[in-house]
This record gives sequence, structure tokens and C-alpha cells, in this order.
Amino acid sequence: MQFSSSLLENAVNEFSKLPGIGKKTALRLVLHLLKQDTKEVNQFSDVIARMRSEIKFCQRCFNVADGDICSICANSARKQEIICVVESIRDVIAIESTQQYNGIYHILGGIISPLDGIGPDHLHIETLLNRVQKEKTEEIIFALNPTIQGDTTIYYIQKKLQPHPIRITTIARGIAFGGELEYADEMTLARSLQNRLPVEKYVNH
Amino acid sequence: MQFSSSLLENAVNEFSKLPGIGKKTALRLVLHLLKQDTKEVNQFSDVIARMRSEIKFCQRCFNVADGDICSICANSARKQEIICVVESIRDVIAIESTQQYNGIYHILGGIISPLDGIGPDHLHIETLLNRVQKEKTEEIIFALNPTIQGDTTIYYIQKKLQPHPIRITTIARGIAFGGELEYADEMTLARSLQNRLPVEKYVNH
Repeated sequence: MQFSSSLLENAVNEFSKLPGIGKKTALRLVLHLLKQDTKEVNQFSDVIARMRSEIKFCQRCFNVADGDICSICANSARKQEIICVVESIRDVIAIESTQQYNGIYHILGGIISPLDGIGPDHLHIETLLNRVQKEKTEEIIFALNPTIQGDTTIYYIQKKLQPHPIRITTIARGIAFGGELEYADEMTLARSLQNRLPVEKYVNH
Repeated sequence: MQFSSSLLENAVNEFSKLPGIGKKTALRLVLHLLKQDTKEVNQFSDVIARMRSEIKFCQRCFNVADGDICSICANSARKQEIICVVESIRDVIAIESTQQYNGIYHILGGIISPLDGIGPDHLHIETLLNRVQKEKTEEIIFALNPTIQGDTTIYYIQKKLQPHPIRITTIARGIAFGGELEYADEMTLARSLQNRLPVEKYVNH
């Protein structure tokens, strides 16, 4: 791409560093910003810079936070005895959007994946065990992606949790709502058969 | 979407104002920036703000420029007698990328479109006529999108240019390279038949 302005070129280059944004999309976004008021573009720019420099991570659950403790941990209306263990912040947002969960979280920051060189020490597992020891935790819910790595991570943490008399569960795996049986892989179909539910429970849900 | 940090939420909201960026994509981009160094994110933010506040428009052709005149107009190696008339900056970048054009440009800033309330007075048509009068223009090449509005704009400007003894051309319309005849619309196919080329000209091209 040939530009007649280095200011434009630099802006396009910065945008095209973002994941999934190519040069043409970057140009479209930059030309859109060029059409907006200077005030609005400054706000865009400020909010991004502030977000990066001021955001913190919750000292308890490693979620993003405006202060030392995130708003979920600080909310006394939520059940502090139930901890949902997830891989990343994105999973917290997905679960919060269902408005069905009223406990708190623990973000591992990844999952055990020896091929990528990620072992248990790279994740917030030790801090989870400390939490279970100190807090009056009654249940740990694993909400990890249903992959071999996810299952390995669950197995590892569950072994470490054995000394503690708490309930350990995982979110249900099965055929997704709206999905079709014939296109489901064997493992999902096999698991959803093994973990079949009584119909009265399903209907009442 | 539910966020545990207002800094994160604001950043996602700002990104999702951009065209074609939904909330989920915005979140992906923001979480990507959150993983980068503060220095890099500040650079991203600075470049965007500077681009908006410092960029200028060429006083001659209305292209984006770092100064009063864009680098294309200022380049004495380019033929100043040939003006390519385009709708937007994006078209200039597309034509420049072919590296086949060595003249200068004139950016209309849109095309005549009565349904959208855009008349000749909203576009840089008067300035184009002034340029033709003052500069030693020999040829005007219209490179507008092949739509009814594009053709209307060409017709209007060409009428206004009649007093001047200059060559007026338009880029060729036809079946795109790699396109398939059977999927071409009737208008394109009809025009490409009307404007057929002698084979020797095509081969030598």
C-alpha cells in the first residue's frame, strides 16, 4: 500500500498489528476515525492508554479490576463459598453474561499444556489451593474448555484438592442447544450418553 | 456483556464504535492490547490521536497530506498534466498500489447521489474546474465506481468541462481478470462487448 501521508501510514500500521486486522481493514478503521471529531478520537485514544496503564488484576481471583479487588469478589451478595475456575478473563465475561452464576471466580491464566511449555507452575494453581485453605470454600466448579489440556488441568488440580472436604464439579458437556446429533464428534456424544439426565430434571430446569 | 472493570468496559465500548467491530471482536482486541507492553499501547494511542489532530488535506487535490500539499502533488517527477478524478482517498491508495499511474489526482469527496442528498455543490467539482482552467491540464481520467451514481457524476463533470479542449477518459469497465463470464451481470457483459479491443492491442498490453 502506498500512502501520501506518513501520519496516515503510521496509524494504519498500528491498527494492523492487532489480531485479525489486515492492512485493508486497518485503513477502513483509520479513515473512519479521520471522519470523526477530534474530541471523539482523543477520547478513543485516551481510554485505550488509560485502560493499559491503570487496569489492575484482582489479588484474590486474578480477574481484571479497577482497584486491588475486583467488583465480583467485592460484591457481598455473591456466594463466596463457590469458586468457578476458568482459563481466562474472556470466560468470566461469557459466564457473567448468562446471569445464571452467583458465586465467585478463580482465573488460572491458561491451562496445562506441555507441548506449549505451560506447566502447573505457570498458572495460578498454588494461589487457588491457598484460597481453598483460607476461605470457607464449599464447592469448586471447573469451567474449562473441553479439550485434553482442559481435562488434564482438571485432573491435576482435583488431585491437589483431595485433602480438602469440598465438592468438586465441572460444567456439563453434551450436545449444544441447537446442535445436531449427527455432526457431533464421538467423544461428545459418548459423554452426553454417559451423563444422561432423567427427563423430569431436564424439563424442570 | 458484563465487565468487572469499568476501564475494560470503556475500552471495549470505544473499540466497538468502529465500523464492523462488534462487542466480541472489541473484547478480543482490548485483551490483546492488555497483554502488550504499556509502551507499545501508548504508542498505539499516540499515533491515533496525532493522526487525527495533525493530518491535513492537500489544498490542490484534497488527498490526505502531512503539509499543505500532498506528496503526490509535490512530486515533480509525476505528470502534472494528467488528473485522475476519484471518489475518495481509498481509491487513490488502490491506484497507487498498482504502480501504473504517473499523473496526479483530484478527490471529489463523494459522488452525486440525489437519494442521499448529495448534489454537485457538496463535492470538490468547482475546484476541479478551477484547476483545469489554471493548470495546463491535458487529460482528465475518471476512475469512479461503475454505478449509476458514478456515471451521473462523470456525465455532469464532463458537461462542465466541454469548454476546455482536453482529453476526457474513463477507466475500462469489463470482465475482471479471473472473473467468469457466466456470473457477470448483463450490463457489464454488454459494455465489455461494446468496448471490445483488437486482440493485438490486448496481447501487447
